[in-house]
Amino acid sequence: MKIHPNSTLLMIGDSITDCGRARPVAEAVGSDLGNGYVSLIHALLGATCPERHIRIRNMGISGNTVRDLAARWQSDVLELAPDWLSIMIGINDVWRQFDAPLQTEWHVSLDEYASILEQLVRTTRPQLKGLVLMTPYFIETNQADPMRAAMDLYGDVVRQLAGRYRAVLVDTQAAFDDLLTAVHPMALASDRVHANLTGHMVIARAFLKALNYTW
Amino acid sequence: MKIHPNSTLLMIGDSITDCGRARPVAEAVGSDLGNGYVSLIHALLGATCPERHIRIRNMGISGNTVRDLAARWQSDVLELAPDWLSIMIGINDVWRQFDAPLQTEWHVSLDEYASILEQLVRTTRPQLKGLVLMTPYFIETNQADPMRAAMDLYGDVVRQLAGRYRAVLVDTQAAFDDLLTAVHPMALASDRVHANLTGHMVIARAFLKALNYTW
Amino acid sequence: MKIHPNSTLLMIGDSITDCGRARPVAEAVGSDLGNGYVSLIHALLGATCPERHIRIRNMGISGNTVRDLAARWQSDVLELAPDWLSIMIGINDVWRQFDAPLQTEWHVSLDEYASILEQLVRTTRPQLKGLVLMTPYFIETNQADPMRAAMDLYGDVVRQLAGRYRAVLVDTQAAFDDLLTAVHPMALASDRVHANLTGHMVIARAFLKALNYTW
Amino acid sequence: MKIHPNSTLLMIGDSITDCGRARPVAEAVGSDLGNGYVSLIHALLGATCPERHIRIRNMGISGNTVRDLAARWQSDVLELAPDWLSIMIGINDVWRQFDAPLQTEWHVSLDEYASILEQLVRTTRPQLKGLVLMTPYFIETNQADPMRAAMDLYGDVVRQLAGRYRAVLVDTQAAFDDLLTAVHPMALASDRVHANLTGHMVIARAFLKALNYTW
Amino acid sequence: MKIHPNSTLLMIGDSITDCGRARPVAEAVGSDLGNGYVSLIHALLGATCPERHIRIRNMGISGNTVRDLAARWQSDVLELAPDWLSIMIGINDVWRQFDAPLQTEWHVSLDEYASILEQLVRTTRPQLKGLVLMTPYFIETNQADPMRAAMDLYGDVVRQLAGRYRAVLVDTQAAFDDLLTAVHPMALASDRVHANLTGHMVIARAFLKALNYTW
Amino acid sequence: MKIHPNSTLLMIGDSITDCGRARPVAEAVGSDLGNGYVSLIHALLGATCPERHIRIRNMGISGNTVRDLAARWQSDVLELAPDWLSIMIGINDVWRQFDAPLQTEWHVSLDEYASILEQLVRTTRPQLKGLVLMTPYFIETNQADPMRAAMDLYGDVVRQLAGRYRAVLVDTQAAFDDLLTAVHPMALASDRVHANLTGHMVIARAFLKALNYTW
Amino acid sequence: MKIHPNSTLLMIGDSITDCGRARPVAEAVGSDLGNGYVSLIHALLGATCPERHIRIRNMGISGNTVRDLAARWQSDVLELAPDWLSIMIGINDVWRQFDAPLQTEWHVSLDEYASILEQLVRTTRPQLKGLVLMTPYFIETNQADPMRAAMDLYGDVVRQLAGRYRAVLVDTQAAFDDLLTAVHPMALASDRVHANLTGHMVIARAFLKALNYTW
Amino acid sequence: MKIHPNSTLLMIGDSITDCGRARPVAEAVGSDLGNGYVSLIHALLGATCPERHIRIRNMGISGNTVRDLAARWQSDVLELAPDWLSIMIGINDVWRQFDAPLQTEWHVSLDEYASILEQLVRTTRPQLKGLVLMTPYFIETNQADPMRAAMDLYGDVVRQLAGRYRAVLVDTQAAFDDLLTAVHPMALASDRVHANLTGHMVIARAFLKALNYTW
Repeated sequence: MKIHPNSTLLMIGDSITDCGRARPVAEAVGSDLGNGYVSLIHALLGATCPERHIRIRNMGISGNTVRDLAARWQSDVLELAPDWLSIMIGINDVWRQFDAPLQTEWHVSLDEYASILEQLVRTTRPQLKGLVLMTPYFIETNQADPMRAAMDLYGDVVRQLAGRYRAVLVDTQAAFDDLLTAVHPMALASDRVHANLTGHMVIARAFLKALNYTW
Repeated sequence: MKIHPNSTLLMIGDSITDCGRARPVAEAVGSDLGNGYVSLIHALLGATCPERHIRIRNMGISGNTVRDLAARWQSDVLELAPDWLSIMIGINDVWRQFDAPLQTEWHVSLDEYASILEQLVRTTRPQLKGLVLMTPYFIETNQADPMRAAMDLYGDVVRQLAGRYRAVLVDTQAAFDDLLTAVHPMALASDRVHANLTGHMVIARAFLKALNYTW
Repeated sequence: MKIHPNSTLLMIGDSITDCGRARPVAEAVGSDLGNGYVSLIHALLGATCPERHIRIRNMGISGNTVRDLAARWQSDVLELAPDWLSIMIGINDVWRQFDAPLQTEWHVSLDEYASILEQLVRTTRPQLKGLVLMTPYFIETNQADPMRAAMDLYGDVVRQLAGRYRAVLVDTQAAFDDLLTAVHPMALASDRVHANLTGHMVIARAFLKALNYTW
Repeated sequence: MKIHPNSTLLMIGDSITDCGRARPVAEAVGSDLGNGYVSLIHALLGATCPERHIRIRNMGISGNTVRDLAARWQSDVLELAPDWLSIMIGINDVWRQFDAPLQTEWHVSLDEYASILEQLVRTTRPQLKGLVLMTPYFIETNQADPMRAAMDLYGDVVRQLAGRYRAVLVDTQAAFDDLLTAVHPMALASDRVHANLTGHMVIARAFLKALNYTW
Repeated sequence: MKIHPNSTLLMIGDSITDCGRARPVAEAVGSDLGNGYVSLIHALLGATCPERHIRIRNMGISGNTVRDLAARWQSDVLELAPDWLSIMIGINDVWRQFDAPLQTEWHVSLDEYASILEQLVRTTRPQLKGLVLMTPYFIETNQADPMRAAMDLYGDVVRQLAGRYRAVLVDTQAAFDDLLTAVHPMALASDRVHANLTGHMVIARAFLKALNYTW
Repeated sequence: MKIHPNSTLLMIGDSITDCGRARPVAEAVGSDLGNGYVSLIHALLGATCPERHIRIRNMGISGNTVRDLAARWQSDVLELAPDWLSIMIGINDVWRQFDAPLQTEWHVSLDEYASILEQLVRTTRPQLKGLVLMTPYFIETNQADPMRAAMDLYGDVVRQLAGRYRAVLVDTQAAFDDLLTAVHPMALASDRVHANLTGHMVIARAFLKALNYTW
Repeated sequence: MKIHPNSTLLMIGDSITDCGRARPVAEAVGSDLGNGYVSLIHALLGATCPERHIRIRNMGISGNTVRDLAARWQSDVLELAPDWLSIMIGINDVWRQFDAPLQTEWHVSLDEYASILEQLVRTTRPQLKGLVLMTPYFIETNQADPMRAAMDLYGDVVRQLAGRYRAVLVDTQAAFDDLLTAVHPMALASDRVHANLTGHMVIARAFLKALNYTW
Repeated sequence: MKIHPNSTLLMIGDSITDCGRARPVAEAVGSDLGNGYVSLIHALLGATCPERHIRIRNMGISGNTVRDLAARWQSDVLELAPDWLSIMIGINDVWRQFDAPLQTEWHVSLDEYASILEQLVRTTRPQLKGLVLMTPYFIETNQADPMRAAMDLYGDVVRQLAGRYRAVLVDTQAAFDDLLTAVHPMALASDRVHANLTGHMVIARAFLKALNYTW
């Protein structure tokens, strides 16, 4: 697997990453990882290659957009100095344009999204052993749906940044699209965003496959 | 308005109708109507024509399919002997086929749905002053979506029964479709079923317009 | 309707306006509007003319008098710079004189009420596209009742200010008086102030009719 | 005082009597008396004449009408065989006609009220050392108010039965009317029925004065 | 009654005075008075002489000793500038010596008690229309009990200060001693301190009788 | 120690014995023993002589009198067939006479107490390897106090039955009296009955000393 | 994978299987599977081969021994007629002998365990398409530990039954033993039984590998 | 017993010492001692030699390592100036190395542990009448277990410091090892650390025996 032994992997994002992680970090190991794809990746690594000693830190916060990430980047990423970093952001940047169309101060335009995200990636990349960029997703098969169409554009930003900055790309949208040939979105997430455990396993598997993990 | 003065209107259905109504019915008026379209209709009538004395009873129960309605029809409809009756059922009949595809015992096929619903309507109609049949709906613009396509077929059953049994038809799907030209489904219901207050107002308004209510 | 497309309407007041709105404002749209007339106006606009894009902000706080409004006017009105503003205040200014007759520091006299309210209206009016002034009310048919008599005097202040400052007047007292020819106050509010959903619909309808809204 | 030493006094009624009493009766003395006039009478007797050993049992149940009293008369009065009995009932019999005008099955007409109450009094009186009949009340000064007017008629039934069956009459309405010359109803009960502690003290004092209690 | 019309009476003390009063003081009248003798005095005055307009403020705090009173005297007494003041303190000063004999830092000796209390009374008396000093008490009939004996000495301090500073003396210990000829302490307070409602009525009555109140 | 290895010891009584034990008995060992003297005896045996394998069952129920014990004797003692049995009952039999003097149906007279208790002991003794009788107690130094005097009489019944039926006597009252020469009752139990952990240790130690346990 | 498409797989066991599953089964899919290895298997199948339509039912109940399984076998296994069945039982059969050594009625001896389990397997096997037998485990590296030694004997029963009845064997103990060469038991389960998510992933992976599942 | 009459004994440590003590310290005596060995020592002293007046303060905090102790030493030990001090620390210093092997910033190495602990002991010893050093423990019989082996090394540090600084040594590990010849660790603590009441009694007894306490 690509992640080096004895590395720390910091995973930052929104509610998909957060997924109910305990705050502040308590005595017990594990509860600080939440109940989503981050904890599944941790469990899969722990069950198959504990001797690699890969430590995961969950820095997701529900509701975050890329703007919120920038505001806490210094304390939540740089000061923790991880070896590897993964970023999955953008769902709320898009979503608020559709479920809160009148609250325009909550919207993050494609340009602002691309600009902030690139700024974070460019300045941080040199200090990392490895970077993983994960696309945002919308579990919707109809590509003409305006929110799906928008999400695809935000995902394209991630795809381009991955190429430009030598990052491992995890195309979560593609992973879900694959599965949606067999099941309806309702079987993965009633709101097409907050996935059930199966949906989180889809993300965890896409992540690990992109890193050449073998089970 | 078509509903006669001094009538009782019983409204039966699933979680959309139920919408958190208090059970058992308590001393206070109102809490037994829930927080959805039923309570909005009650409030609109009360604010504009209280002198008509139209009493509303909410008999919705979350998660119900037409099968569940049939099982409680005697106690929850017939024994209460309403003057007017409204029925909105079918969403769960369809939904379980998509969010629980393997739990086949929870699915209600189109044939079974049509058969049970007609049986209920045919035997009850003679005892009513008026009947309102409301289509189930799915707040989805993509008519090729399999769950939308299925919902439309179940809605067609309702549309046909309305004609056959002299019922007032409330086409909730059409009402939502109208609105969806201006807003995305996310602005009405994150899971495209459980509407927010605006969505319930859409249903309430469609109901009252079908009955020639003037505001 | 008089409110211009793409406007923000800020509605300020006491517990009738507040009505359980979530604080602080959370991610989800809607819960920040409470369960009263504000949310009903929002739902009615959303169900009938979403393309007008009228955004509503609820700034009511339970228990407020006009003195409390003045104390938070800078942060809660001026800094938010709404296009339209509605004010409904005065019920607690009067009520405390009757349910807490010995707590005189809680009372706001008619003079103080008129003086503070005019000060707020005069200085704010120039910055607004439109202003709505709503009378306080007491759901009491006996005009000789001392609290009703007092409320009418406070309402007169609002009526005069509306004329003087080109504001749309919403006479909530008159709207309730109309309805009380058909029902007893107990059917709208057991304490004659905190209305049930029907009572809030009365206010919402009076508001919208004053603005030439059509349903 | 009229109540004989070593007597049991059973007090039955609605929410005014009940007032939050613990059910089922627990080990601790006192919590089974609620927080209203019953507990105040108990405390006043206990603080001034504990040597009289007058035991009080609270049998009030919130929401009760005279119909509910009749239904539980055997178990809640006759089988407990009290020496003295007090009855205060009728508020809900009247109230439901005004706050739930359309729920006619909850209404108890004046005729039914008079008939049931007399039946209870006539058959029980011979087994009692003493009987106290308390009028229902409405803390409303406007005697033209329809609910006040109705309450006065129901109170008249109590006044007549007191004379006919040698009962001590406690005219709670008169006691409140006295006080309302000095304060507004809002200072005693925001809904004009559920009194605060001062209002319950008014009832307790009227009860004890009618029994020639000295403080 | 001795308390002048239109006066404010501030009552300060420990848990007996506090008795669950709401903090911070809320909109509603009454809940800020707790459930003990303070609220009973308020209710008795309200039920018999509301036209005297005597306002009561409860400033009791559970667990307080005279040391705690001194620490908050400026904000909780002087700045509120009451017309009349009542003080009941000393129970915890004594109690901690018996239930926490090793926590000597919690004990307040007789000398310290007398010294602080006199200091508070001497400096405040000139600003008051009237002062009420209430003895602490222990609902124990055995005067040889060490805690009862100690409480009597602390009570003597209060008795002497009442004479020296023209205060109305309320001898709560004497009031309880009277009653204990008829009932066991267990019938008033299982821990001989925290009285039930009957015990609080004993205190309220002793207070009012000392002020020549007539019922 | 007198209790035979591999014995079951069933301990029955009131709230002192019960002391919050979990019901129904759950998977986990220990929580079914409560937090009082029973669990302390269990812990002391477990910490010093686990090889004796003495199993303890707690059958205390809060509020019980000897009447309640008799009612559940068959299911809670006989059917469990313990080797050893301990009984501590009588506190509530006496207490209700003092804290609920008017609820005479809750009182258990000395005669009834002696009669029922002897009946239980006489019929059960033959089936036991050993019996422990524990006196009820009242943590009160004043032997002239009526409740203490009564408790001593009930204790005498236990003392006599212990002699008559070859039971080990645990004189809890004597154990507390010893300690009360050094501390005030308030240091052991604010209501002189429900002991703190030190008080429960006093009982546990008296129990074990009577059985010749060595620490 | 060995499990046939369109099969139902029923998984029965103790708290490891149960792992907090919702009861009764609610409307929502997923919560009825708990948070342990069952839900991980469900998620892995759902993320990789949803087109196989393998439905899983969780029938674990915390605290169960093989005795409890036998008692509910008819209703919880036979009447549900699964295609495939997995059984993991025995941990509590052994554990109670060590954490509750005196509660001998909770212990299930090796003989009783073997006898009941074989009885269940023998009678049920003919009705199944496939059977999976999972050993109980104890996450303890010291094979001389008496509880580990006992667990190995109970596991041997499972291993033998698997051979005798053509069942797929899942040796969970071996799977954990493998991992314990790299980590201490504390990293998987603080009590060496109730595994964290990594431990449950170990079980899920052992299960799927035994069935030739490919990821 | 070695502890001098009228002494204060401060006991500091981790969750074993803390054991749920109330914070902040409340009015009531006892709840500030938690439910573990500290409260048992308090109860044993109180039940047998209350006249010695030995006061105990619990300063344990869950999750603490020796590093955390050093950080709060000034406020939690030195400023409280106890006569006697007991320290039990080290379990978490070791445990985190095994249950959180990757969170290396939580680990305290043997060197750091020895260095900090000696520093605390050396500087504090001169101000104390007496010092008790308690070893950390792991309730594990297998001395080859890596966590047990590590705990023994940390315990050796305590054993050496006790000799060097004239402290009373309480070898909790030895006390548990004694008991483990008769019972399995599961009978004392399911996670081999957080003991049940029997386990806490083992610690309390070892503590008191080391101080020559007689029961």
